[in-house]
Amino acid sequence: MATNGTSVRGGQTDNNQPASNVDVLIIGAGPAGIMAAAWMARMGLKTRIIDKRNTKVFCGQADGLNARSLEMLDSLGFGDRAWKEANHMIEICLWNPDENGIIRRSDRVPDTPVGLSRLQQSTLHQGRIERFFLDNIKKYSNDTIKVERGVLPESLEIDQGKVEDQNAYPVTVKLRFLTEEEAAPKQLGGSKVSDGLFRSNLFQEADEDALIKQTYDRAGAGETVHAKYVIGCDGARSWTRTTLGFELEGEATDMIWGVMDIIPFTDFREYTNPELKGWKTDMRLCQADIRCRCAIHSATHGSLMIIPRENNIVRLYIQLVEVKPDASGRADRSKITPELIFNAAKKIIDPYKIDYEVCDWWTAYQIGQRVGTNFDAHQRVFLAGDAVHTHSPKAGQGMNISMQDCYNLGWKLGLVCRGIAQPSILKTYQSERRRVARDLIEFDNRFARLFSGRPAKDIMDAEGVSMDEFKEAFVQGNMFACGLSVDYGPSNLVLKPGDAGEHGDGSDVVPPAVSMSEADFDRKQALAAGIPVGMRFNSFQVLNQSDARPWQFQKRLPADGRFRVVLFAGDVHHAQQKARVEAFCAKLNAPSSFLHRTVGGDGRDGLHSVVEILTIHSAKRWDTELLRDFPEVLHPFRKATGWSYDKVYVDDVSYHEGFGEAYKNYGVNKERGCVVIVRPDQYVAWVGDLEDFDKVQAYFEGCLMLKDYANEVESSVAAIVPGTVAASDNISVE
Amino acid sequence: MATNGTSVRGGQTDNNQPASNVDVLIIGAGPAGIMAAAWMARMGLKTRIIDKRNTKVFCGQADGLNARSLEMLDSLGFGDRAWKEANHMIEICLWNPDENGIIRRSDRVPDTPVGLSRLQQSTLHQGRIERFFLDNIKKYSNDTIKVERGVLPESLEIDQGKVEDQNAYPVTVKLRFLTEEEAAPKQLGGSKVSDGLFRSNLFQEADEDALIKQTYDRAGAGETVHAKYVIGCDGARSWTRTTLGFELEGEATDMIWGVMDIIPFTDFREYTNPELKGWKTDMRLCQADIRCRCAIHSATHGSLMIIPRENNIVRLYIQLVEVKPDASGRADRSKITPELIFNAAKKIIDPYKIDYEVCDWWTAYQIGQRVGTNFDAHQRVFLAGDAVHTHSPKAGQGMNISMQDCYNLGWKLGLVCRGIAQPSILKTYQSERRRVARDLIEFDNRFARLFSGRPAKDIMDAEGVSMDEFKEAFVQGNMFACGLSVDYGPSNLVLKPGDAGEHGDGSDVVPPAVSMSEADFDRKQALAAGIPVGMRFNSFQVLNQSDARPWQFQKRLPADGRFRVVLFAGDVHHAQQKARVEAFCAKLNAPSSFLHRTVGGDGRDGLHSVVEILTIHSAKRWDTELLRDFPEVLHPFRKATGWSYDKVYVDDVSYHEGFGEAYKNYGVNKERGCVVIVRPDQYVAWVGDLEDFDKVQAYFEGCLMLKDYANEVESSVAAIVPGTVAASDNISVE
Repeated sequence: MATNGTSVRGGQTDNNQPASNVDVLIIGAGPAGIMAAAWMARMGLKTRIIDKRNTKVFCGQADGLNARSLEMLDSLGFGDRAWKEANHMIEICLWNPDENGIIRRSDRVPDTPVGLSRLQQSTLHQGRIERFFLDNIKKYSNDTIKVERGVLPESLEIDQGKVEDQNAYPVTVKLRFLTEEEAAPKQLGGSKVSDGLFRSNLFQEADEDALIKQTYDRAGAGETVHAKYVIGCDGARSWTRTTLGFELEGEATDMIWGVMDIIPFTDFREYTNPELKGWKTDMRLCQADIRCRCAIHSATHGSLMIIPRENNIVRLYIQLVEVKPDASGRADRSKITPELIFNAAKKIIDPYKIDYEVCDWWTAYQIGQRVGTNFDAHQRVFLAGDAVHTHSPKAGQGMNISMQDCYNLGWKLGLVCRGIAQPSILKTYQSERRRVARDLIEFDNRFARLFSGRPAKDIMDAEGVSMDEFKEAFVQGNMFACGLSVDYGPSNLVLKPGDAGEHGDGSDVVPPAVSMSEADFDRKQALAAGIPVGMRFNSFQVLNQSDARPWQFQKRLPADGRFRVVLFAGDVHHAQQKARVEAFCAKLNAPSSFLHRTVGGDGRDGLHSVVEILTIHSAKRWDTELLRDFPEVLHPFRKATGWSYDKVYVDDVSYHEGFGEAYKNYGVNKERGCVVIVRPDQYVAWVGDLEDFDKVQAYFEGCLMLKDYANEVESSVAAIVPGTVAASDNISVE
Repeated sequence: MATNGTSVRGGQTDNNQPASNVDVLIIGAGPAGIMAAAWMARMGLKTRIIDKRNTKVFCGQADGLNARSLEMLDSLGFGDRAWKEANHMIEICLWNPDENGIIRRSDRVPDTPVGLSRLQQSTLHQGRIERFFLDNIKKYSNDTIKVERGVLPESLEIDQGKVEDQNAYPVTVKLRFLTEEEAAPKQLGGSKVSDGLFRSNLFQEADEDALIKQTYDRAGAGETVHAKYVIGCDGARSWTRTTLGFELEGEATDMIWGVMDIIPFTDFREYTNPELKGWKTDMRLCQADIRCRCAIHSATHGSLMIIPRENNIVRLYIQLVEVKPDASGRADRSKITPELIFNAAKKIIDPYKIDYEVCDWWTAYQIGQRVGTNFDAHQRVFLAGDAVHTHSPKAGQGMNISMQDCYNLGWKLGLVCRGIAQPSILKTYQSERRRVARDLIEFDNRFARLFSGRPAKDIMDAEGVSMDEFKEAFVQGNMFACGLSVDYGPSNLVLKPGDAGEHGDGSDVVPPAVSMSEADFDRKQALAAGIPVGMRFNSFQVLNQSDARPWQFQKRLPADGRFRVVLFAGDVHHAQQKARVEAFCAKLNAPSSFLHRTVGGDGRDGLHSVVEILTIHSAKRWDTELLRDFPEVLHPFRKATGWSYDKVYVDDVSYHEGFGEAYKNYGVNKERGCVVIVRPDQYVAWVGDLEDFDKVQAYFEGCLMLKDYANEVESSVAAIVPGTVAASDNISVE
């Protein structure tokens, strides 16, 4: 452990090195690192992000975006760019051997289970996704956060005496600037088709070239960085993890797979190829299925997964049954060539023919399933992405889970660093994400076994894999694979019953501010059966009360670091319900309410700058008037900009885009409504009644820093972390 | 006229001036000019676009995007950017005096008529729209087409002896580079709130500053440009129009209006403002309506239009009943101040209160309705936008109609210049667009009269405007205003019966290649009642046959300069229908077919590079296989990229996005289908039966340049204009 005040590597002190302070240092600019940087950009933290590689080479090429990742990108403001360019995977075809051992399409199922999300599994080049991130980071950081490439961390120290001090910079990292030669990853080589590495980021911008040049100009120099927080996103061989003395637990299997990105074609067409004359008509169908995701189990030659991508490219995951690990448990990667891989594919897909002229990329891997022992050190250094979990890439989870790690961490770090939230919430990063990583490995284990296994010949073939079992696992697995089965356990961020350790990864977190029985919880959860506490808030269409514009409600939950209280106000035309709404709002707007006591917000949305209140009512839009029917706290007035017109929505029929039936889909009663707390990452923190304001208050007292109510001066914490006090901008016009 | 070989202005010859050749010179970089440049960029023509103003000032600020404009932007690839940033106007509220003369909301109607388009009327700052265009032009022209600002045309000559020669550069324009001072428009001045001019383009890019600098470095210098074509998009006082000796016909009315962009608010709330205690409850509703478009007729103080915009800004169009033109027919604009305008607004909206702190922009105008006598000279110099039509801005038509002019002209010019289409199609620009301009003036006239008129007190008040009549005109007018009532007359680009002059603007065009009776036409039109010939092809959702992805069909009609034949293949599972499809495809794929004889295409899509064939069938997707059920010409095979998977669609239920019911919505019979020709601007050129291939052939013979069939050598025209021959890339694999 490097946490005892002594660095593990290269710890010599050089007082001539330049030194600087940052809020956050991110090590590694892959999907996890840039997601972290995107959060820091919008949270306004002083941040640096370094990567030892130069920008022009990527080793490996993840490209699956699951539904939840697309929702996250959308919350950051560029989901539309990904959605527009990506290949959408709508349908999966399952191919299995028939009684004669010939593969047949046995099933078609939707890739993303219907109703789970408004977005569906897609594939898009990782280079493009990184481009969207970099554009977004540039915009939100006002061009202050840039990936510094060719920069290597050489030592890391945590000063344990300072980890409780929110003003301190307890982590010291020494950096070295690499030469261009050092920063270029080694090529795999050995193939006439491709060198196995993807060679260029797409659409590289001139300013990045300049930045790289600048780095090389400093080649050989060093720098000392003092950071409040460090995030290690430096991959499966993570330097950060190793330096901290943490490990990955788990092991490699003997399953070896090849991967190829090709533009496939075949030269057969029945009417021109005499060889095919005798084929049954449906023997040619495989060709058409190549634009769907396909899982093909051959009788004896192994399995093949087809993943269609943009521009007619198709990714093939090909089981290499003839390649086995040696005595050390590792396969000799040098013997694996694209020819070997493609020959395996041809055998699996036989009697269909497949060939290609263009191979964009290829690689091979041995399935290994490992999870990190620790995801953080003192809640000051965090590990994310491949640094804490490795698994097979076929389910397209690598990039997704890595991004999702930092989507979970980013806002917590941002809120704590800005003094808005209590530092204890940082403990939930490990408890929430390590649990997800373990679930992922379990899923991957089962899936890999079923997919790599030989299909059972018949019901008596006990060693074979039952194709019915495979289909069932595949469909269930898709729930997991699309990223929407994540269900976070109880903590001060999620108010639900149960043991925090048991529902998390076993580690220590602050328990919920409100304790409740399972029965009490179930009664409240029943108020919004479609909004399960611990899971992400699904999206349905609602209309803006003021201008009738339809919105996917999730669009109103952007990643701006705010918590949200969603008031399902019910039918505000009934006097009794209106009175309930008014009573809730009176408590919400009282001086003692958390809403008037938040600190550290940017003030941009007045009273709503740290916790935004959104309303969805169920009366008819035409019968309802924003100013007449809704208390002011739901649509505050601010000098110069007038009323807020973006806070109150209605579950009504749109002119042009149908009826979202939000109440029905969320499982909320149209008369009485309910109240929901949503975290900045769109996860549901609590569901309750309009009479349960005290629970809402307790929730925010349990996780936010709040001003003292009695004397209304800023608390010491607010004084520590300068920032506009949210409520100060709430100018009254009385 | 400057077309006699002598320039009108500044005609002195300076042999020392640099000279250059371009395909197209665009004069004016407003909405019309940049739309023209966007087409030229994607058609690959050598193009320059100049503007006499520097980029930092815009005089005037159009910001309404109607449904058709949004569809156009989408076809260019950036409709999504506009849609994302714009304020969507969903609902219109009509406010009229009640029996006591107090304004009341009398009606609510959808702004865009339901079912007409998948996109709706929106408002977005012109600066942002221009930004999207400039980004797009940069991308498609590979950064070769840039707006050159501060450049003034000084003379224009057309060499009539060369106008028939497609290789010649018959138009000579002399340019002068302005100083920074010259290029800055005069400020209106005289107001404490704002100088009446919008002061900055948004998000100016560094490279544009560099470009301006470069222009100023050349200040005072001149240049001679020889152009094949010139497009004058230089506004209501068009230098190009004046130089050609053409005029605007029509006159100014005595109706004067003010315009203000403000963030409105009011200080009244019933429970805090004693003044309002006596008000009826619904008296406060106006406040809520301010995020809807509102047309307010006051009893005696004139009318007011509310146009909500982005960022809580609202545009007010305010009738100035107290300002009258003088004896010369012109109002003295110097006396009009924002205070005068806003006072008029307050009177109209009384008894409601309105005020503001932020005024972003203001102006005033006198309604004048004029149409140009000529839209082109020798089909070598064209006029577009305000240069050939002026009208009142309230209906939000200015920018839309201007962009739509050049959307109509751009592809025609591009196809002719590249030798793909016959030069005669250029005549349809005037006949089609001058007709639209005249319809616009007629609409504007009626609308302005009804909207500026005093409301009738009762049914006996003959001088007043009936509010029922107004509503009817308003709703009908919306059809026009959303840009979807345009119906082009017969020509070699639109196969329908009738007199081309009568259905156009009276000018001469090449008549349809196929003559037909009204009855014959109606019988064919009935095959696709929802796809009227002469109007734009509406959009409904279909699924890609190969991967089940849902598409708005209009997304498959991008602005890439291609005509399209849409084969509604019907139920291909019936043997008889399948035989009809095969017979049609056999003719389509015969060596004599237009498809094999096009010239000048870029070859990027093989056989489909000039005319793309798209199929929508009505069988079930799961029962149908791309390779088994559809002839190859509908999804051609190309070496290296394999089969085309983006050509065949199905009218079936999607997993996640419902059922588009395309056949039903297009009015096409699900068994027998039909065939539709679509122009590169998404307008419908012809509808017929699968047996009517000869009509399809005749259509393309009537407008495209085709290779000689007999000896299969390139025609002289193809030789003149170098370019990849489309069919050459259609490599067979037999």
